Amino acid sequence: MTEILSEFSKYAENAIEEENPTVQKLEKAGKKLAKLNIGDPARFFPTPKYIIDAYIKALKEGKTGYVDPEGIPELREAVSNRYKRLYSLDVNKDDGIFITHGVSEAFLFTNSMLVNPGDMAVMFAPYYTVSYSGFRIFGGEPLIQEYGEERDWSLDTDELETKIRRQMNEGKRIKYMAITNPSNPTGMVLGRKTLERIVEIAKNNDIVLVSDEIYDEVIFDGTEFTSIAQIAKGVPHIIYNGASKDLDSTGFRVGFMLIPGNDRVSETIKRKLVDFCAMRLCVSTPAQYAITEGINNIKEHRLEVTEFVKAIAERASFASKLINESEYMHVVPPRGAYYLFPKLDMSRLDLKTDKEFVHKLLEEEGVLLTRGSGFGGNDHVRLVALPSKETLAAAIEKIDKFCEGHSR
Amino acid sequence: MTEILSEFSKYAENAIEEENPTVQKLEKAGKKLAKLNIGDPARFFPTPKYIIDAYIKALKEGKTGYVDPEGIPELREAVSNRYKRLYSLDVNKDDGIFITHGVSEAFLFTNSMLVNPGDMAVMFAPYYTVSYSGFRIFGGEPLIQEYGEERDWSLDTDELETKIRRQMNEGKRIKYMAITNPSNPTGMVLGRKTLERIVEIAKNNDIVLVSDEIYDEVIFDGTEFTSIAQIAKGVPHIIYNGASKDLDSTGFRVGFMLIPGNDRVSETIKRKLVDFCAMRLCVSTPAQYAITEGINNIKEHRLEVTEFVKAIAERASFASKLINESEYMHVVPPRGAYYLFPKLDMSRLDLKTDKEFVHKLLEEEGVLLTRGSGFGGNDHVRLVALPSKETLAAAIEKIDKFCEGHSR
Repeated sequence: MTEILSEFSKYAENAIEEENPTVQKLEKAGKKLAKLNIGDPARFFPTPKYIIDAYIKALKEGKTGYVDPEGIPELREAVSNRYKRLYSLDVNKDDGIFITHGVSEAFLFTNSMLVNPGDMAVMFAPYYTVSYSGFRIFGGEPLIQEYGEERDWSLDTDELETKIRRQMNEGKRIKYMAITNPSNPTGMVLGRKTLERIVEIAKNNDIVLVSDEIYDEVIFDGTEFTSIAQIAKGVPHIIYNGASKDLDSTGFRVGFMLIPGNDRVSETIKRKLVDFCAMRLCVSTPAQYAITEGINNIKEHRLEVTEFVKAIAERASFASKLINESEYMHVVPPRGAYYLFPKLDMSRLDLKTDKEFVHKLLEEEGVLLTRGSGFGGNDHVRLVALPSKETLAAAIEKIDKFCEGHSR
Repeated sequence: MTEILSEFSKYAENAIEEENPTVQKLEKAGKKLAKLNIGDPARFFPTPKYIIDAYIKALKEGKTGYVDPEGIPELREAVSNRYKRLYSLDVNKDDGIFITHGVSEAFLFTNSMLVNPGDMAVMFAPYYTVSYSGFRIFGGEPLIQEYGEERDWSLDTDELETKIRRQMNEGKRIKYMAITNPSNPTGMVLGRKTLERIVEIAKNNDIVLVSDEIYDEVIFDGTEFTSIAQIAKGVPHIIYNGASKDLDSTGFRVGFMLIPGNDRVSETIKRKLVDFCAMRLCVSTPAQYAITEGINNIKEHRLEVTEFVKAIAERASFASKLINESEYMHVVPPRGAYYLFPKLDMSRLDLKTDKEFVHKLLEEEGVLLTRGSGFGGNDHVRLVALPSKETLAAAIEKIDKFCEGHSR
């Protein structure tokens, strides 16, 4: 039998989950682990009670069957109102809002819908790992532009435009430009001026903008967030968002896609998305009702999210300081999201790659991180800033001790 | 701008949902519709209370975060026990069981994992609509073998083998052979002898078997069901199943994949599936706990499913008789599942296609069916046998009246 797997399935991966077999082995042996690999707030902050209550109400009312493939109208309306409230944006619930199985499915739909083998997409590294692998499993060829870590993860947009032009002159088709803002894994927040340049480049080169803004309410004090939708009018753009991160309900699997435009490309995408949604029938019905309340109950939400973001900001700042006291790591403190993305000084360690670093750290110290190379950021690790300060301090101490033991 | 959509996205469709815009228009105008298009038991039979209770318990216990990408161990174990109980099958919960966002995601994983553009898969027509479109959006080229409607939807396996040989001689790669058993849309149940021939053909030609058995507990009296897993030992096979149909919980979006084999191909597929699961993080966490109880509470489940299947069998038999009294339609009565798939006598109607039939029937009589051509069965319609006899009788009377009005 010749190779059974498809050619592009070799790209299927998610670095965040790849140490699971080792985790299971260690836990089976009774080892207590510090799992700082996955951005799951529900492990550290209980999902707000008013959302749970709405979920239970939906179940008791018999909301258990199939619903609209694009999502229940109530939730699409809540999302529409949310964008009106936060960004003064008018997106009709029936024209450009699609509820998905988390942002994960938004990646899938976008790539399945747009990407032929050999098509390109612009990605800024470090990128969210599934943003990359989700594109590659459709045969896409990424055009990578790296953020400048030494310049606070800023973006050289002139270099970006030159790269794009070069590929287009060679006849390459660039289907979209992917942004994750705030960034996962770095926690950087793109400034308005940079975003305006990105929009300009997209416009000049007929490239669709795809912006994953799932952390848009997890912004630390003193930083301003701009949604691409506020400045991309007239340029086709797709926004990903969802309930997992600011409503602290990762396990409900409710995300959404917004296509605010009415240009020809946006209209084509919206029509096609209806078909993709229909093929998987619908997203969790009772969870959609829960998230409708989660968004609509503004008073409860504000109370919850304010406390939540304040706690994360403190933890991130605390952990950044500790990391920067280590002689083996350095981190640019994040401005939003849940993550720290320190650079490892590999020249001082007897380890070859960040992958080896992560695996051995788990085996030896019971601390689980995610390798930076999984995000296109070699010689880095990603850790979540969600646990308590005590847990973070203990974990960082262990990482430092591990580095000490592996110094050369 | 050149074409924005990918080449294969043109195949994205689900005939079951395609009349939704007309439905919305009619309902907005206050029209009451008989929707017999979608196999959603929760609209007619409440989801069992013991499952709802387990769901609520999970929510109250804070089961709201991410869990194992392959599914919670408790649910994988429940699935393992189910296959032991029903089919004397040994599949370890940690080796060959994967929880998915419904069977819809099982289609997606299989096709993304196995199909290169130009690869073939054998499909028996009429097939489940997403079985076909889900394959084609990856560039797959179906090799269709039609069931013989005039011979109770039986399969000519000799003709099948000849077709397969011909394609292989021409250098085509046939990746898998797809079965839906019991059949959606016909309700036919494949006999053991036919299944044995299918397994033999798969074995002789190195083709993976993919069997969608989501209706395996919805079998009418006097019919025996055989799972492909009972007879395909040694031949690589993937089984789809889930909670939607026999546990009456379509809106929870919990399905599963079983790969019982330990041959090289099955092992390769299992390893790769871990990556695909990881890319979308997990399936609804509280719903997985609910379905764990749904499967494990055998006593409650037996009570519920026995009543449920008895009711559906009666309704299907009742509706079959009524349909066969019409001079415009004929149906082979189903042996399982939820559906009737009557053939329309188009020669007697002033309508060109079953698509036109379905659309006009909806507009004129407010009865919503699904066009047979969406299942690879031209000049047919699919209707669900789930509503009450009164509703079915009223709908069939309207269909007959519609035919009368469109006779020529």
